[in-house]
Amino acid sequence: MSQAMAQLFQRITTGVHVIGVADAIRPSAFTAAWVMPVSFQPLLMALSVNPDHASYVLLKAGGHFTVNVLGKSQLALAAHFGTPGRMDKLAGHAWHPGRSGAPLLDDALALFECSVTAELPAGDHVLTLGRVLWGELRDPSMEPLIYRDTGNLDGAAAIFPDDFE
Amino acid sequence: MSQAMAQLFQRITTGVHVIGVADAIRPSAFTAAWVMPVSFQPLLMALSVNPDHASYVLLKAGGHFTVNVLGKSQLALAAHFGTPGRMDKLAGHAWHPGRSGAPLLDDALALFECSVTAELPAGDHVLTLGRVLWGELRDPSMEPLIYRDTGNLDGAAAIFPDDFE
Repeated sequence: MSQAMAQLFQRITTGVHVIGVADAIRPSAFTAAWVMPVSFQPLLMALSVNPDHASYVLLKAGGHFTVNVLGKSQLALAAHFGTPGRMDKLAGHAWHPGRSGAPLLDDALALFECSVTAELPAGDHVLTLGRVLWGELRDPSMEPLIYRDTGNLDGAAAIFPDDFE
Repeated sequence: MSQAMAQLFQRITTGVHVIGVADAIRPSAFTAAWVMPVSFQPLLMALSVNPDHASYVLLKAGGHFTVNVLGKSQLALAAHFGTPGRMDKLAGHAWHPGRSGAPLLDDALALFECSVTAELPAGDHVLTLGRVLWGELRDPSMEPLIYRDTGNLDGAAAIFPDDFE
């Protein structure tokens, strides 16, 4: 594990997002920091996902994902949706399905729904490109949660290598 | 142009970075917000670049890029390196070449040097994947500059489409 490497990479600023996915039967959601816009025309969003996680199967099957942007006060939501292995992470949370069936959280600061257009293998992750179908700013006054401010909530320090190779 | 669309996409939090590139003869640098880590093992960084910009030719020729992370007080550096068409943007700035020749700014908060491993066309941009060769946290006390806090410095509101298609 490497706390130093985690702290270095936290200087690349990102937000904290709950990514919604769904196949024909089941919706699910997980927390992700590695999300960014990558094109103006067309509007494209890139998402880096761990293909070993259960949600990746739903992402591949459904071909869509939602980006629910979390606000500064929503660290608990980030922790909840960042804990793998729970049977139904959406139970007890206010949400509704987007056009694709992928979940949209009622409490998110901003929402986006994307249709997957391409994938690129990227080390232990897969970089997924999505066309932004629509988006909505729910609360302009809410400050987004910043990944660096979550400390080691996601346990990244245990995953980062100790050194550069 | 769409101020509303720009404001919506600013809720996806990113930092502000000066990207260094170089071919065998000439180094150059440009400001970019769309940079994020995408893999732990190996350490990979994704950068979305506009292939119509002059620096893209240097990025392709050199096969490397540096990420110079700017701090909150470095808005002027972001503006300087974000203005295209200057003959030698590096003149008068303290920098030295990285292993690849790509420029490292002495005043950056943190530095990364990356070797390009893959590319994916992404609308009006190209998503470039780079293996992180090394990185360094220069000033742990410095807060990174956040893209949203630069307002419309980069003129993105004029580039964003008015609506989703």
